[in-house]
Amino acid sequence: MLNFTVGPVKSDEVVLKIGREQVPYFRTDEFSKLMLENESLMKKFAKASCDSRVVFITGSGTASMEASVINFFNENDKVLIINGGSFGERFVEICNCYSIKNTEIKLERGHDITEEELYKYANLGYTGLLVNVHETSTGVHYNIDMISKFCKENNLFLVVDAVSSFLADEFNMEALGVDIMITGSQKALACPPGISIMVLSPRAIKKAEVVNARCYYLNINNALKNGKRGQTPFTPAVGTLIQINARLHEIEANGGVESETKRIHELALDFRNKIKDLPLEIVSNSMSNAVTPLHPLNAKAGDIFEILKNEYQIWVCPNGGAMRDEIFRVGHIGALTKEDNTTLVNALNDLVKRGLL
Amino acid sequence: MLNFTVGPVKSDEVVLKIGREQVPYFRTDEFSKLMLENESLMKKFAKASCDSRVVFITGSGTASMEASVINFFNENDKVLIINGGSFGERFVEICNCYSIKNTEIKLERGHDITEEELYKYANLGYTGLLVNVHETSTGVHYNIDMISKFCKENNLFLVVDAVSSFLADEFNMEALGVDIMITGSQKALACPPGISIMVLSPRAIKKAEVVNARCYYLNINNALKNGKRGQTPFTPAVGTLIQINARLHEIEANGGVESETKRIHELALDFRNKIKDLPLEIVSNSMSNAVTPLHPLNAKAGDIFEILKNEYQIWVCPNGGAMRDEIFRVGHIGALTKEDNTTLVNALNDLVKRGLL
Repeated sequence: MLNFTVGPVKSDEVVLKIGREQVPYFRTDEFSKLMLENESLMKKFAKASCDSRVVFITGSGTASMEASVINFFNENDKVLIINGGSFGERFVEICNCYSIKNTEIKLERGHDITEEELYKYANLGYTGLLVNVHETSTGVHYNIDMISKFCKENNLFLVVDAVSSFLADEFNMEALGVDIMITGSQKALACPPGISIMVLSPRAIKKAEVVNARCYYLNINNALKNGKRGQTPFTPAVGTLIQINARLHEIEANGGVESETKRIHELALDFRNKIKDLPLEIVSNSMSNAVTPLHPLNAKAGDIFEILKNEYQIWVCPNGGAMRDEIFRVGHIGALTKEDNTTLVNALNDLVKRGLL
Repeated sequence: MLNFTVGPVKSDEVVLKIGREQVPYFRTDEFSKLMLENESLMKKFAKASCDSRVVFITGSGTASMEASVINFFNENDKVLIINGGSFGERFVEICNCYSIKNTEIKLERGHDITEEELYKYANLGYTGLLVNVHETSTGVHYNIDMISKFCKENNLFLVVDAVSSFLADEFNMEALGVDIMITGSQKALACPPGISIMVLSPRAIKKAEVVNARCYYLNINNALKNGKRGQTPFTPAVGTLIQINARLHEIEANGGVESETKRIHELALDFRNKIKDLPLEIVSNSMSNAVTPLHPLNAKAGDIFEILKNEYQIWVCPNGGAMRDEIFRVGHIGALTKEDNTTLVNALNDLVKRGLL
């Protein structure tokens, strides 16, 4: 199967070979060293300040989204949530679960946030802002420079879910003044799913010490303490952490985060050029390099997903719920090539010939 | 490295080969089918009633321990916790984190609970009991028949952490009246760590519907709803779930849970026979088949762990904290053989010769 979803994505040989090996025991100096390397390279690629820290949680990206709320906000806070799709909605649900006061800025599907929409919340006593910099469900990459400026002006604690955007889009955590950046193992890191990662600014580290986390498993202060010696409080997905280590070193050896982002950018451009004559409408006015969200003009998106899977051995990424028949997405993260793009475009052209697209 | 720890343990070829393969996209009928098979075989091997359910959480065993508290108890409850080591202690910490009233029955290290110790809590208004049936830190397998009888007589909701005991020791969830049984992927299931599993009785399923879970990620009612169609609310560790599927089928093909338990039991007996003349004291008065806890009479346990690792390429399982220099443990779960036991015993004999044990 050729995998154009946005996670799990296609891994390369280096990562797959490690999957074949026995998972080692981990309460050892050897594993601690590996974890400290993971922390160091994650900070480098996120362009975090040198006094930032990194926490690796065994769980889905949602576990880190929740940890980013409950370890840093409480009932005295009032947060803004940019809600342009199902992941923005998830931040709202998490805050509501803990009775953390929040205001959602609901966006029209496929649209970036405008200055007008954001700035009407200036000087209103908000203490934090939560955003999925790439709202993966609709393929919208928000104007993070504008959001960063707004947060600095209003002294907001800024949480950025970059789960599908990290490595795919330019991001400078320190320059943007981001307090928490979240990503996951199964996106552009191109490892199996099971680990989510939080990079924490010095301000976030201090805040985790004073806010009483309302969850035992997702207690970030505890994770930070254990992380000092390269360990985790509970048995982590050791194998995936070793794969992440190999992948981070590989990215470093190939020129670092800039080269990786450039590679993904070129892959996305190549695909977008190749589909120009197809009856597919791009439904985002501000795209991430990670994914192209498409509305088929003459067919149901859900049907396209099924036909490509069953008849062409290709996975594209379906949407859930109300968007299932309207949008499907094509990912550009993972070990994909321009030749893979051609294979997919040939299949789409074949669907046109067959009257199915 | 030869791995005698209690997790991650040695996997067999079937599991390792899957680790080498690309992780597939999972919002598909194919993956749903696999998850429903996982549920069915887990129920069979736990000897759960046919109207029980199974939830697969991407996380450490501790995530399931916490989920077993917060989805089933609230401030109106009063729970008993059998605390004979660090995993019993963890249940206490989780309950305290959520202000759930609890009484811990502290046991002498290495000792099973007695009828006298347990029955003084009869008829005192408790609503639940939490126990790690095999307290892995000290290698004590508790008298679950007696605990079960007590819980039935007192109508207690019974949560059994069987993380390291499942498949290794006999267990009949329905006959014991257990409401929740917990295990993990990296113990006798012998897959990589990253997935913890909860088997829920009909009473537990009903309770999850009415208790307001105080965590978003660990909401069991949500997991149960998604699980009906073989899916999870959030991206799971897909690769590990596929490995679990292969392993469950393999156990089934080899004669089911009874054969697997017998195999582990024989491996444990073989090791315990082979070390009879060594200066090692077994420090549990009620052992699980999963592990043998040992106190070296003439050496520090922590040193033995380091020497075996660095000079013999063998991992035994060290203890943490205060027990580090007193106890190390030898696991019998995972793809180990009697020949592997001999290799370890030869190394231990060599240590004696060298005056190090």
